[in-house]
Amino acid sequence: MLRTSDVAIERADGEARFPDRDRVVVEAPLQLRARGVPVATIMRTPGHDLELVRGLLHAESIAPCDARQDGEDGVELATDETAFARRGLLASAACGVCGRAAIADLETRAKSVESDAGTTLAVIATLPEKLRAAQQVFDDTGGLHAAALFTLEGERVAVREDVGRHNAVDKLVGWALDARVDPTRHLLFLSGRAGYELVQKAIMFGVPIVASVSAPSSLAIELAERFNVSLVGFVRGNRANVYAHGWRLR
Amino acid sequence: MLRTSDVAIERADGEARFPDRDRVVVEAPLQLRARGVPVATIMRTPGHDLELVRGLLHAESIAPCDARQDGEDGVELATDETAFARRGLLASAACGVCGRAAIADLETRAKSVESDAGTTLAVIATLPEKLRAAQQVFDDTGGLHAAALFTLEGERVAVREDVGRHNAVDKLVGWALDARVDPTRHLLFLSGRAGYELVQKAIMFGVPIVASVSAPSSLAIELAERFNVSLVGFVRGNRANVYAHGWRLR
Repeated sequence: MLRTSDVAIERADGEARFPDRDRVVVEAPLQLRARGVPVATIMRTPGHDLELVRGLLHAESIAPCDARQDGEDGVELATDETAFARRGLLASAACGVCGRAAIADLETRAKSVESDAGTTLAVIATLPEKLRAAQQVFDDTGGLHAAALFTLEGERVAVREDVGRHNAVDKLVGWALDARVDPTRHLLFLSGRAGYELVQKAIMFGVPIVASVSAPSSLAIELAERFNVSLVGFVRGNRANVYAHGWRLR
Repeated sequence: MLRTSDVAIERADGEARFPDRDRVVVEAPLQLRARGVPVATIMRTPGHDLELVRGLLHAESIAPCDARQDGEDGVELATDETAFARRGLLASAACGVCGRAAIADLETRAKSVESDAGTTLAVIATLPEKLRAAQQVFDDTGGLHAAALFTLEGERVAVREDVGRHNAVDKLVGWALDARVDPTRHLLFLSGRAGYELVQKAIMFGVPIVASVSAPSSLAIELAERFNVSLVGFVRGNRANVYAHGWRLR
């Protein structure tokens, strides 16, 4: 399996905007099966899968056992599921934090973001500086991820920070739900990388545009494509890469 | 609760080395209880806890319910645990990836790293460049975390990359276990931040020194202190911050 994937993007540089290609890191689920019984699913970059499983079992104090690759997306373990159950890993087979769903699960719970609200790349180019200005704690420790909600005109509405990037998004969405903020009138901006889990949370919230200062994963792009979310990455200066649904960005 | 914590460090700058203070981001467990029954533990930075829970429930399609802060480390939910069980979140209360253990759990499984092997800050200063040279994929995508094993003399032994930083460490440790590498003769170097989970994996492996290019969390420092691991952060140029057990660094 490939560790990187070649995707079609639109590259924006100031006023210019042109189709291009970009390489993104592959993020894909690996299912662990204990004598055929699925016990856990890990979102990972393919490659060194047996080492990954060996290391994970070790970290979780589960006895090592024979493991063999079973297709591209599976590892078959010569153990029964009780060891996983003891370590509380069993049910996390379906845990969002650990990499539950993948797209199939999300399709049963979420619908496409139907809003055709748009913004401009000029607005998006202003977001990193606005976020930094709001990130009081980051300056202090260098250890926090931030998630921010902006209006489509680029006005900062709320910022949340956390050591976990998924927590920052959960806090932000939790606030927005309480405040009855209309997600379709806003965009989500992330201080770090945009992985599958963050885009999933954006879809559940219903925000039409997700932008980040860093790289998206392959699965994040797939999710954005499938659920009609505009995904922008590497927002730096006047440059940005548009990975999905660029029609919302004038 | 505080979102940042003031800690004593040693600051290294070229040949100079002096005691100083640093602010680190707080990482602490938040326990979710459904009518008194613990259903999940989230490692998070304190603050906006009720919003965090609201957002998490929303992302997991669990119906919103009354929630109230119950002490600094808990949130009490007016729902029963079945909703969590349905979403597979129940057992992840004890899931390492989701923030199981904290120190108590680790103490039942791991022992302090007893090795008194040491290295020098001059060696550590060479690691970022050596890691970059080895990171073929990162240059391509900007989306991968790396974990690397070096000898105490600074020789690169193995590098693993993944979209998830914990996966990169699991792959590396899995390889090292298979290759019967003596952990006490090596140090672990991380391309990103050093959180609780990564230091926990280092302790389970038994490596005496963990260094990273970025920030540690409060809980990572506590774990390193407790389990006798030397923890170095912000390795950049000839500078570095020593957060725990600096006696291994000459």
